[in-house]
Amino acid sequence: MTSNRSVKLARRPRGTVTRDDFTIDESPVPQPTPGTFRVRVRYVSLDPAMRGWMNEGRSYVPPVALGDVMRAYAVGIVEASSHPVFAEGDAVTGLFGVQRYALSDGKNVLRVDPSKAPLERWIGGLGMPGWTAYFGLLDVGQPKAGETVVVSAAAGAVGSVVGQIAKIHGCRAVGIAGGADKCRTVVEDLGFDACVDYKSETFGADLKAAVPSGIDVYFENVGGSVLDAVLPRMNRFGRIPVCGLIADYNATERPRGPHWSALLVSRLRVQGFIVFDFASRFPEAIEKLGDWHARGLLKMREDVRSGGVDAFPDVLNLLYSGGNVGKLVLEV
Amino acid sequence: MTSNRSVKLARRPRGTVTRDDFTIDESPVPQPTPGTFRVRVRYVSLDPAMRGWMNEGRSYVPPVALGDVMRAYAVGIVEASSHPVFAEGDAVTGLFGVQRYALSDGKNVLRVDPSKAPLERWIGGLGMPGWTAYFGLLDVGQPKAGETVVVSAAAGAVGSVVGQIAKIHGCRAVGIAGGADKCRTVVEDLGFDACVDYKSETFGADLKAAVPSGIDVYFENVGGSVLDAVLPRMNRFGRIPVCGLIADYNATERPRGPHWSALLVSRLRVQGFIVFDFASRFPEAIEKLGDWHARGLLKMREDVRSGGVDAFPDVLNLLYSGGNVGKLVLEV
Repeated sequence: MTSNRSVKLARRPRGTVTRDDFTIDESPVPQPTPGTFRVRVRYVSLDPAMRGWMNEGRSYVPPVALGDVMRAYAVGIVEASSHPVFAEGDAVTGLFGVQRYALSDGKNVLRVDPSKAPLERWIGGLGMPGWTAYFGLLDVGQPKAGETVVVSAAAGAVGSVVGQIAKIHGCRAVGIAGGADKCRTVVEDLGFDACVDYKSETFGADLKAAVPSGIDVYFENVGGSVLDAVLPRMNRFGRIPVCGLIADYNATERPRGPHWSALLVSRLRVQGFIVFDFASRFPEAIEKLGDWHARGLLKMREDVRSGGVDAFPDVLNLLYSGGNVGKLVLEV
Repeated sequence: MTSNRSVKLARRPRGTVTRDDFTIDESPVPQPTPGTFRVRVRYVSLDPAMRGWMNEGRSYVPPVALGDVMRAYAVGIVEASSHPVFAEGDAVTGLFGVQRYALSDGKNVLRVDPSKAPLERWIGGLGMPGWTAYFGLLDVGQPKAGETVVVSAAAGAVGSVVGQIAKIHGCRAVGIAGGADKCRTVVEDLGFDACVDYKSETFGADLKAAVPSGIDVYFENVGGSVLDAVLPRMNRFGRIPVCGLIADYNATERPRGPHWSALLVSRLRVQGFIVFDFASRFPEAIEKLGDWHARGLLKMREDVRSGGVDAFPDVLNLLYSGGNVGKLVLEV
């Protein structure tokens, strides 16, 4: 390939993204200037938060500007470098965007070891989603051995790791996922104690049966009606790390949430968090996750989609329609 | 008086309580048996939580049984005692119920000192509401000097103490209360930095103007539309101790609450609590509040209503209609 191909945000999407919200840009392959290097992007990470990055308004990061390459985590190989630290051949992760080639100054770029895990895993369970699970569950959720941990989007990049870390810490791990297939994966492949299908008509009763001792920690990825079903099952002094609310990321108008009475009566602690808040401790997460992974305690699964950068809008939407199992990535 | 007069719960109220939800019972003055004592109840505490105690269903305490004397905190004088610890003439607080005379075995009864503060204050700022403010603000809210603390129901028993404790700890204290008179009291008499009238048409703008640096701790007593207005003003890593949600205590069907997106984006910590969770530390609160009160740093105000036990339903409803300023008590 002799040109770069990138996906740029053309307008602020309303509701679910469409191809028309983006333009595909063709430009020369960028050449490193002193202090920078060029990455040949191999896999782009599809993250639920991306939909929020496209919206105007105050959030934890500025929105992607119109006309800019769509922000995305990615993993790739350094092809050419005028940088003192990163060299040709290095495998690296960073915010490289939805494009084939990225220039980087090395800021917030991590070198990863492809001999220990496939490239795409470094933007999955061993990358940001894994760190999110690690800090959100252990620091925010503070599970104790013997407690019951429930996680929504349990077949997803973050949820699948949350349940396994809960098991490692001696908890009962119960997943919530969409569909019998995902639930089977969560229990049989990932080792959760149970998984409940939120699409089933018997979801409420199934959830109740899956948590005979109630719920001590609910790791929240979705919000919406799943949250409504979980809240009354929370035990006293339960904790709810709020990692995501994907059910409403495409809503043009945000629906109301649950009444706070359960928080009061059961003395719940509900706490929103963003993985970047733990940036100074990323090395700790990288070490722990890598160790558990190497010892076979932490299984990871990626859902790799092809189609190149042009497929970005369609692949992204799989996240919100529940079309993926495991970490969703786009091969570039 | 030669007979006891008590208010008994006759049926589960729907919405706001009425006199028909209770019966007035006349019975002989109880005589102490060994290990018990008789209290002549002087003031009955009206607490927002009482409405919840009348409802069926799981909560942090069992509901008042139909036919039982309505549960209530109260303060009174020991009149006759066969108890090893409490003696005739002692001023005591406890769960004596809405009645003129109570028999007690001394469990959860505290002796108080009427020379240090009037009797009714020991069920107000120096009693349970004061302890609630103390633990809810300091332990759950964890304000730091220089931060902005907002409290709803700021003219009430708990809220009025919350703001003053915030001031003592070097915070900016902003109250939310209903009506200009209450707001004036909160600022001029209690020393808050500002108070915003939630009944005003300009409430949203007034609140914004009152918290130029945003809100770090919101001590929640009310819920409803006040909460909706506060949430977008919360600073990152803000904390919301949830003490009460009085706006909906009389609702026959609970309305939905705010969407949780603000919790996530601003990384808020929302935590329900009940003062009893801190029971082992009540002596600490009693000592601190008493000390601040003695030094003039903590002003307290009671709203004493007459009418005897028969007036209980009407006086209770003042809480929910915002009819009181300061701790609401019923003189028996």
